[in-house]
Amino acid sequence: MRVEVINTGTELLLGQVTNTHVGYFGGELLALGLRIGRQTTVPDGDAIRTVLEEAFGRSDVVLVTGGLGPTPDDITRELCAELLGLELCEDEAITAAIRERVERGGRPMREVNRRQAMVPRGAEVLTNPHGTAPGLYFPAGLVGGSPHLFLLPGPPRELMPMWADGVLPRLRRALASEGRLGPAVSNHFFMGLGESELAARLGEIEEGPQLELGFCLKWGGVIVRCIGEPAAVEAAAAWIRVAAPADYVGEGAGPIERAVVAVLAERGESVATAESCTGGLIACRITDVPGSSQVFGHGFVTYANEAKRDVLGVGEDLLAEHGAVSEPVVRAMAEGALSRSGAHHALAVSGIAGPGGGTPEKPVGTVWIGLASRGGETLAVLKHFPTDRAHFKERTANAALDLLRRRLAQTER
Amino acid sequence: MRVEVINTGTELLLGQVTNTHVGYFGGELLALGLRIGRQTTVPDGDAIRTVLEEAFGRSDVVLVTGGLGPTPDDITRELCAELLGLELCEDEAITAAIRERVERGGRPMREVNRRQAMVPRGAEVLTNPHGTAPGLYFPAGLVGGSPHLFLLPGPPRELMPMWADGVLPRLRRALASEGRLGPAVSNHFFMGLGESELAARLGEIEEGPQLELGFCLKWGGVIVRCIGEPAAVEAAAAWIRVAAPADYVGEGAGPIERAVVAVLAERGESVATAESCTGGLIACRITDVPGSSQVFGHGFVTYANEAKRDVLGVGEDLLAEHGAVSEPVVRAMAEGALSRSGAHHALAVSGIAGPGGGTPEKPVGTVWIGLASRGGETLAVLKHFPTDRAHFKERTANAALDLLRRRLAQTER
Repeated sequence: MRVEVINTGTELLLGQVTNTHVGYFGGELLALGLRIGRQTTVPDGDAIRTVLEEAFGRSDVVLVTGGLGPTPDDITRELCAELLGLELCEDEAITAAIRERVERGGRPMREVNRRQAMVPRGAEVLTNPHGTAPGLYFPAGLVGGSPHLFLLPGPPRELMPMWADGVLPRLRRALASEGRLGPAVSNHFFMGLGESELAARLGEIEEGPQLELGFCLKWGGVIVRCIGEPAAVEAAAAWIRVAAPADYVGEGAGPIERAVVAVLAERGESVATAESCTGGLIACRITDVPGSSQVFGHGFVTYANEAKRDVLGVGEDLLAEHGAVSEPVVRAMAEGALSRSGAHHALAVSGIAGPGGGTPEKPVGTVWIGLASRGGETLAVLKHFPTDRAHFKERTANAALDLLRRRLAQTER
Repeated sequence: MRVEVINTGTELLLGQVTNTHVGYFGGELLALGLRIGRQTTVPDGDAIRTVLEEAFGRSDVVLVTGGLGPTPDDITRELCAELLGLELCEDEAITAAIRERVERGGRPMREVNRRQAMVPRGAEVLTNPHGTAPGLYFPAGLVGGSPHLFLLPGPPRELMPMWADGVLPRLRRALASEGRLGPAVSNHFFMGLGESELAARLGEIEEGPQLELGFCLKWGGVIVRCIGEPAAVEAAAAWIRVAAPADYVGEGAGPIERAVVAVLAERGESVATAESCTGGLIACRITDVPGSSQVFGHGFVTYANEAKRDVLGVGEDLLAEHGAVSEPVVRAMAEGALSRSGAHHALAVSGIAGPGGGTPEKPVGTVWIGLASRGGETLAVLKHFPTDRAHFKERTANAALDLLRRRLAQTER
């Protein structure tokens, strides 16, 4: 089934509101084995006319959001009725529901609100418990070869319940009536090797009509997505899981901190952080994970040298001799955080985020990452992330969390 | 000028990545007096062909993102050359830059990377300091009535610098060469009052063909945007600056931490942080600001009660009697951070981010925010942000930083 999404709304094109509908629909449709083949955003008003005409001619399912409101530039309902040659009739039950809702809000019922109660003949009403505008469903073939057409409200809090209650069941029914089953989908997350290197390692997996591989940079790593026939997807997944074991974070996955928190919780262990250049980002990302209080109690943001000395006990001599961005200092930071927190592991980072502060020996982007563990050797690795400040912090946090993930994966429990 | 945006990327249609480009472009173009008339997303691969053909026929400016990578489904460059009948030639300088970048990352240069160095004859190269794929600009009229065509990389960190350095100057030049001047634009950022309250305070400003006011929720506050004739915009701005002085962060502005760091630096003062529920986010946001090391040296992430006790010196009795989320504890955290860091100010937060941990007396979303200052009274305020975990952290950080901004604005230097 060719699926197309049309979003109407001037605010989506002016930088005021981010279009989250497409991602939401995309994820939900994928679970049915459907994919969006094209998505278009147009301003409110007549601009939608051409896009609707095009969509009616080329797609099997058309999902439209927005343009169902009471203002004069909300014309999606009327346009669809016109394009399909369907008469509009007032639905008294909708009028009554709108009147009740509007008057409950202390406002008078207006003539413009009544427009929202107009239903094209043959369309089904999708009730909207969260707003005045009901949605509409035009079954496929209602007029000639017309597609499955859904008109949905723009605000996410109105749209999402209607999606679940009104759209999904109808799409499932349509798929079932055509005897179609969705394909299998499987996602795999890797950290620590590039997209092209990973693609090379997976080169033996044969793509074709039964299997499609996709690569997507996300969460500081690479997601490999397999879609296709269940058997082909399972065979590919079996290969993918062992293609680069040290770099394989897991199936589905999410930001690396989720994997780290999950493994720590499973082992009953904890981590502390000692951050200079990341300024608290590593702690913040760990605590983004619900339940992280089980594995994280202490974080130290030691941005100044005095903080490294007073809070973590880094020797004045180390700082003077090697500088704050150095192997000895990052080791001392990790070990200081370990002993002061009583945690099982401690991550430390010290680097030059820029834009200022670089030198020829230690240019902007230089960072030392340390990892101390109870009863284990302290590791220190040197990285270079010559990029902007925000991305430097992000990449440093990813590398630090990945260092801990690798240690946890390699050590006995 | 009719402006059209085309985003290619299967990940944008599968729910993996949210399309933030459209909003970014929309806001930036508005400042030039341009608006996006249509935006389309298509999967990677050949689907972009039809959309490009349509766009070439109907738009004056076409902005394309994605499809410039090294994998076989990245074909935007080749397709545009083909559709416009332009020969592709390897640009040796780009090849060398790609080789250097790839090899610096410890990977070998591959044949697929070389594709990224191919430039259609007559197109200008837009350099990409943050990735291997350069952008391309095809000037309007390069072939027949072809539009201004920009091919840009998908990843935002590559795209945004290229937008600023490569796209905006060329669009400005194109507008100027047509004798068109953009309107005046002025943005004003407020924190601490709602959109409708702010709109009411600005009710006397008359909108019309010379002046358009827009409101946009951003950075935890509200941006008021004035667009129009320079004199009308200046008159409106003068009114806006004094409409709600305590809530006015400033012109242009940005996240609240920028204003806080700027004022602290100007006063030669510093701030420390003691964070429980935000887990380091406040420190992280302060250190997002370049030059923040001048005003920030110490941050304490005291997620566990033992950390509050051992690191900040919060009394065991306070914790036992009032609980960690309480006025006495947040005051003690702020004062502990102040004395341990030697900073001029210390912000502390303790709350319940959820999803677990709520009680009838202290439901999820409850948070105490404390502010201690050298020689000043310690403040403590109670807030409720009943939302999801990420948004709770964000709103708490905004409220804490805004508390410090207000104290700095009200106190003598």
